[in-house]
Amino acid sequence: MSLKVDSRDKAQEIIDKYDYFLFDCDGVIWRGDHILPKVAETLDLLKKNNKTVLFVTNNSTKSRDDYLGKFEKIGISGITKDEVFGSSYASAVYIEKILQLPKDKKVWVLGEAGIEKELQELGYTTIGGTDPRLTADGVTFDPDHELLNNLDKDVGAVIVGLTMNLNYLKLSITMQYLIKDNKSIPFIATNIDSTFPTKDKLLIGAGSIIESVSYASGRKPDAVCGKPNQSMLNAIKADNEGLKASPGKGLMVGDRLNTDMKFGRDGGLDTLLVLTGIETEDRVLAQEKSVAPTYYADKLGDLFEMTQ
Amino acid sequence: MSLKVDSRDKAQEIIDKYDYFLFDCDGVIWRGDHILPKVAETLDLLKKNNKTVLFVTNNSTKSRDDYLGKFEKIGISGITKDEVFGSSYASAVYIEKILQLPKDKKVWVLGEAGIEKELQELGYTTIGGTDPRLTADGVTFDPDHELLNNLDKDVGAVIVGLTMNLNYLKLSITMQYLIKDNKSIPFIATNIDSTFPTKDKLLIGAGSIIESVSYASGRKPDAVCGKPNQSMLNAIKADNEGLKASPGKGLMVGDRLNTDMKFGRDGGLDTLLVLTGIETEDRVLAQEKSVAPTYYADKLGDLFEMTQ
Repeated sequence: MSLKVDSRDKAQEIIDKYDYFLFDCDGVIWRGDHILPKVAETLDLLKKNNKTVLFVTNNSTKSRDDYLGKFEKIGISGITKDEVFGSSYASAVYIEKILQLPKDKKVWVLGEAGIEKELQELGYTTIGGTDPRLTADGVTFDPDHELLNNLDKDVGAVIVGLTMNLNYLKLSITMQYLIKDNKSIPFIATNIDSTFPTKDKLLIGAGSIIESVSYASGRKPDAVCGKPNQSMLNAIKADNEGLKASPGKGLMVGDRLNTDMKFGRDGGLDTLLVLTGIETEDRVLAQEKSVAPTYYADKLGDLFEMTQ
Repeated sequence: MSLKVDSRDKAQEIIDKYDYFLFDCDGVIWRGDHILPKVAETLDLLKKNNKTVLFVTNNSTKSRDDYLGKFEKIGISGITKDEVFGSSYASAVYIEKILQLPKDKKVWVLGEAGIEKELQELGYTTIGGTDPRLTADGVTFDPDHELLNNLDKDVGAVIVGLTMNLNYLKLSITMQYLIKDNKSIPFIATNIDSTFPTKDKLLIGAGSIIESVSYASGRKPDAVCGKPNQSMLNAIKADNEGLKASPGKGLMVGDRLNTDMKFGRDGGLDTLLVLTGIETEDRVLAQEKSVAPTYYADKLGDLFEMTQ
């Protein structure tokens, strides 16, 4: 059963025990554009104690550079690019390193600028994504749209992630690429979170967009690059020898049982679930021992608040 | 194994053998706005031979009245409202007769005017659907949209069907109603076709929209009103005593194995698959005997062409 972080001793024990603190962002660090209480203070405290702090997010709408801007904007300073691992970056790395897609091939993107930027940083050309032609006529679907009728023969991979600029045209073009060439173009999902938490409600998550084109095309994604997939954690371990040698020195902090907690657990890390996202205390306590988080807390900021 | 309709004798045998001819529309009668070859002649021939002709469509974007207009427009005259059974009508009837939703409750619609009209004809108030506030700002999603932040407490059912005016806002509001009140508001799917065939390509079908909100809300539809669900066929049988008494006197003609053919077979009718929609001859011939269509043909118009 998960141990609740509800006293100074328990909070201090966690700070002392781990060297690597990995954080999900949405629902842990912030909700929407609002930083959660005492998060900045908690991160400061950890850094003052020489802890390694890393951010691991499934939200593919932003690139790592975009995330640095977001941290600044909500009042967390001093984060560096190598501390941030997003599913947009993980997906781009997957396409380069695992698929080894030639750089003269293009990638069709159903998603936002984060995916485009990370791919472009690796030298790929993207199509779809934020192309204004896909949203210019957002209200009325045109079955003879130029991008629906003229598929690009150079597309060598399809990436699907979260976009709030979703429409029938984008879904239908994505489906064309997924069924093209006898369904042979690789189908990459940034992550499969069913919902996207904002400050006061749950919205449609990347996984729910992926389900739509998956059902339409009769295909499952060939790879899911976000949590709980271990490829992102392996990349983090490669950069952090101490964590690679002793995963038990790492704590994965998140708000979702089926992504964040599984991600940490599968990688040999201990886990801390915070209740500022989508899970409830009842849900946490109902978990079987084998999958229960190591700890849970009302909020990340309790690590700071309880130790003052 | 399915018998191919490839000669005068076989075509004539079919015309002679059945009294009731039930037709799917998209991919059988028309594709998009184009009537398929010799369809009008085939329907004339059947009517001249005193056959009962009925249209059974999963496309919920139109009401029965709208369908009459569409038949006229593409060159098929004389169709009457009682010859047309659409999934929008079937869904509205389900809400009235099976759910017995009080008339002072409202229905949230993710779909087109067809659903709204059929519900309004039964005395219900619909919200969502074609409300222009849901598409006015089609490009940029507003997380504080009035319809997302102010859920209507009188909504007593959610219907999801096909809409090409799809966006993230509509999906997210639909999800709010599906998770509202501990997920207790009934969730009705017009049909679960994964794709929507147009004249030259497959687009996203109602089922692929339903999958999205289903995955997001963690709910399966409580009812699917279109083919292959038998509620539509039972309604047809109720109006056609001869078919009810002898289902074997009926032939269901369609272009989909998993909806049209299953619909006919489950209801005791013989079946004819036409290759003008989404299936291929290879797929038809690969079916196990227990689920293979009785017949298949290159097109519906062959019944006319081959008997001249």
